[in-house]
Amino acid sequence: MKIGRQDQHGSSISTSNEDTILVRGRDLVRELVGTLSFTEHFWLLVTGELPSAAQRRVLDATLVAIAEHGLVPSVQAARMTLAAAPEALQGAVAAGLLGCGSVVLGSAEAAGAFLAQIQARAGAGGDLESAVETLVREYRATRRAIPGYGHPLHRGADPRARRLLELAAEAGTAARHVEIAQLVERRLPGLLGRPLPLNVSGAIPAVLLDAGYPLAGLKGVPLLARTAGLVAHLVEEQQRAIGFVMSRAAAQAIDYDGPAPADFEPSEDA
Amino acid sequence: MKIGRQDQHGSSISTSNEDTILVRGRDLVRELVGTLSFTEHFWLLVTGELPSAAQRRVLDATLVAIAEHGLVPSVQAARMTLAAAPEALQGAVAAGLLGCGSVVLGSAEAAGAFLAQIQARAGAGGDLESAVETLVREYRATRRAIPGYGHPLHRGADPRARRLLELAAEAGTAARHVEIAQLVERRLPGLLGRPLPLNVSGAIPAVLLDAGYPLAGLKGVPLLARTAGLVAHLVEEQQRAIGFVMSRAAAQAIDYDGPAPADFEPSEDA
Amino acid sequence: MKIGRQDQHGSSISTSNEDTILVRGRDLVRELVGTLSFTEHFWLLVTGELPSAAQRRVLDATLVAIAEHGLVPSVQAARMTLAAAPEALQGAVAAGLLGCGSVVLGSAEAAGAFLAQIQARAGAGGDLESAVETLVREYRATRRAIPGYGHPLHRGADPRARRLLELAAEAGTAARHVEIAQLVERRLPGLLGRPLPLNVSGAIPAVLLDAGYPLAGLKGVPLLARTAGLVAHLVEEQQRAIGFVMSRAAAQAIDYDGPAPADFEPSEDA
Amino acid sequence: MKIGRQDQHGSSISTSNEDTILVRGRDLVRELVGTLSFTEHFWLLVTGELPSAAQRRVLDATLVAIAEHGLVPSVQAARMTLAAAPEALQGAVAAGLLGCGSVVLGSAEAAGAFLAQIQARAGAGGDLESAVETLVREYRATRRAIPGYGHPLHRGADPRARRLLELAAEAGTAARHVEIAQLVERRLPGLLGRPLPLNVSGAIPAVLLDAGYPLAGLKGVPLLARTAGLVAHLVEEQQRAIGFVMSRAAAQAIDYDGPAPADFEPSEDA
Repeated sequence: MKIGRQDQHGSSISTSNEDTILVRGRDLVRELVGTLSFTEHFWLLVTGELPSAAQRRVLDATLVAIAEHGLVPSVQAARMTLAAAPEALQGAVAAGLLGCGSVVLGSAEAAGAFLAQIQARAGAGGDLESAVETLVREYRATRRAIPGYGHPLHRGADPRARRLLELAAEAGTAARHVEIAQLVERRLPGLLGRPLPLNVSGAIPAVLLDAGYPLAGLKGVPLLARTAGLVAHLVEEQQRAIGFVMSRAAAQAIDYDGPAPADFEPSEDA
Repeated sequence: MKIGRQDQHGSSISTSNEDTILVRGRDLVRELVGTLSFTEHFWLLVTGELPSAAQRRVLDATLVAIAEHGLVPSVQAARMTLAAAPEALQGAVAAGLLGCGSVVLGSAEAAGAFLAQIQARAGAGGDLESAVETLVREYRATRRAIPGYGHPLHRGADPRARRLLELAAEAGTAARHVEIAQLVERRLPGLLGRPLPLNVSGAIPAVLLDAGYPLAGLKGVPLLARTAGLVAHLVEEQQRAIGFVMSRAAAQAIDYDGPAPADFEPSEDA
Repeated sequence: MKIGRQDQHGSSISTSNEDTILVRGRDLVRELVGTLSFTEHFWLLVTGELPSAAQRRVLDATLVAIAEHGLVPSVQAARMTLAAAPEALQGAVAAGLLGCGSVVLGSAEAAGAFLAQIQARAGAGGDLESAVETLVREYRATRRAIPGYGHPLHRGADPRARRLLELAAEAGTAARHVEIAQLVERRLPGLLGRPLPLNVSGAIPAVLLDAGYPLAGLKGVPLLARTAGLVAHLVEEQQRAIGFVMSRAAAQAIDYDGPAPADFEPSEDA
Repeated sequence: MKIGRQDQHGSSISTSNEDTILVRGRDLVRELVGTLSFTEHFWLLVTGELPSAAQRRVLDATLVAIAEHGLVPSVQAARMTLAAAPEALQGAVAAGLLGCGSVVLGSAEAAGAFLAQIQARAGAGGDLESAVETLVREYRATRRAIPGYGHPLHRGADPRARRLLELAAEAGTAARHVEIAQLVERRLPGLLGRPLPLNVSGAIPAVLLDAGYPLAGLKGVPLLARTAGLVAHLVEEQQRAIGFVMSRAAAQAIDYDGPAPADFEPSEDA
């Protein structure tokens, strides 16, 4: 059946014949394999253009920064899934990526939209200070978290965020979005009554948007990066399995508080 | 409850404190971000070691080669999923990766195991010819496809496979597994009665195993690479949606052949 | 690390020891298996209470109504995924469920929230008419679709919606939410300038909320129901595979419109 | 491109026009909604036939038996995923189902194949005893677990398995597969040197195959049943979140044992 009003029937990413595969108009085998790094190829795939050296450097830095942070929930979900279903590594990676949501990891996209909105409201040469203030107040009024600020472990400052801004300065790409990200960080203590330092999910859109990477592709960055970390964890899980050990500890941290017959004694391991 | 016999409770990939994130024993922020390319970081994550320039070059080439091949089934599944659930890009990527299975894309892993088995059987300095012959006959006897050979579109030769072998020679990493992959290709016409050229999923393990990349991590290569292609398609889907257009064409290609009342007329669009 | 402010550590759904499994306080083996239908058990799991006969009847009707509607996008995604990864039926079901999103299938939840909001605004004995009018205007002003109304195939009326309302009347559960759902349908032509009949995703929350099923569990109904349909399709896919046939037709419906060398001729099958 | 040798282009599950939806040849709205229970509809979807009362009773019992068993790994993965991505309930259900693999839950399918193989080898009126002995020895020789026997918590006997066999006797459907399942249980202590009681994943195929449910649809039973349990847990997670609490406890159960600088002190919460 015809769902929705889609009337496009074109795609401009890739086509092929028996001898040649075109990707973004370039001959994959003759021009790209062996020439481009994977990061350059990702930029080409998403934007249709080859990145400059500075763009590649910034994108590499964000992917490296966000790929791995230990046994976070999505890694645990992936390792438990592989322990239960070792026949399908792709299922374990998928289970891990499903946890790249609006609360964890996926907030890079929300933070990018936040920064872009400030930029749009201030306009060219406009008043960033008041645009920041207005938007933070709107988020507060609707009880939305300020995306890209604060971290449960790195409370004083997220060292990855610091490094990414530094790198963007070195690469010469830092511009308006980095400026906004830093301005918000300076203003938040006054607006919220407590400091809330820029985190890696706030720094990623700041440096990438300044480098010319598109807002619509922002969520792809943590998704791609985290796939690398998940693969590493799943290779380790195949060799030194901890999926069920983690699951047992997790279950023991929770108490059953529903109804039970008077004489029921739960197993320590239930 | 305690499932299975897992008695490990260690992991050696990452740990952190408020100031420092260690990845494979290195300081993520001070040593890796801005220094490593994403491909080098992926190698470090999976193996615990930094790659040489030749290793990085070979891994980059495989990731670029397998990232994108047009509107293949996994891309279609991802784009249809995003059209139906635009609120969760991570769900659409996951739906696409779930199609990296034993038949499509995931065959790089099976091909790696096939090549490694020939290598193991022939032993050091052993008789590759007869190891190839024996194993191909075993696969045939149990009606298993020879993994890594043949392609539905690239029937004469998969140009990506050719290029990867060439690149491994240039990088100086080509060794025993490449030799085996080529030997199998030469022997298949005689053993099967028809040519079946090496495809990209056969070339990837050949060049990666020779470069020192671990067998256990092979499936991670198409999974990581394909995530890049999926992200590009999903960015395009957000801008020029074709998910439901493809779905409609797919449904129209299938006829309902179950029971129906005599007077029932199916809709053209059902 | 400690993410978020979660400070609960209880769950009231199930516990067990070596001899006994409690589900919602009842002995699974001695009280439930062989006694409850699966639909009654689902109601118990979600709400903690056993359903009345009328509640069970309404829930059964909604699950039957939404379980299957042919080769819709989520079914196609699941069948293509199984064709590519036959080793993991669970992955194919997961790929299908990922398409139960805000646009397709998942709209039952949004429709439930819409009906509940009208009910809340009108208050006990309040003015439903003006609550409907205000909310529809708000949705229109923010360009949001009215959830639960309109269907791409069943343009005059969705026969499943009609039947569910009829059934709720027969079961004696129809009340305020059904009344609101019908009122909205009557008012939409005036408010939107065209008729937009109640669809199955609008009727499901209407009859379930009236029957006492919780708003928070609404999205679980299409998810559970569709799992049944997906399993049936995947059993058929194992026996008569059409996943790649659909995929080929879908790809042929799309034209490559990106750049290409002047002498490039795409394959008919690319 | 044309992948594989699929040349079917038919499906017999459902078709529709603007007024009528046919499911397995029956009018969904006029014949099925309000008439069938969801369990009967699932049987119809999978087999194309309406179940008898006894068949329905057995299928209901298996679905109720396997729907819920507390905070098992798949439930944890689902709850952690929802905590991280609350915008996509379907993603959390999918993450949970991805853990229905060959080790956990999915073993019903492997157990069904095991029982069916014994049945096939013994033939009509053949020697079950020696068929059992031979197959168990083959599994042992290739170090495969005997699917459907043993449980980490219910060591003496899985009470769900007992109840399902009892129910099949009451329903009058118990036949050859139940006989085989019990015979295997009696013979395992002698063959393995220790008792290994029939578990729920062994009892489910025994009673379902005897009732006429198809082997190809066996894995759909735990998948459908577990979706019900997952929905219940996700409704609870929305109201009393424990996803990150479980994740924190799981992470604390694992020690980092990779390299670290001499002066590095891991955070307690890392």
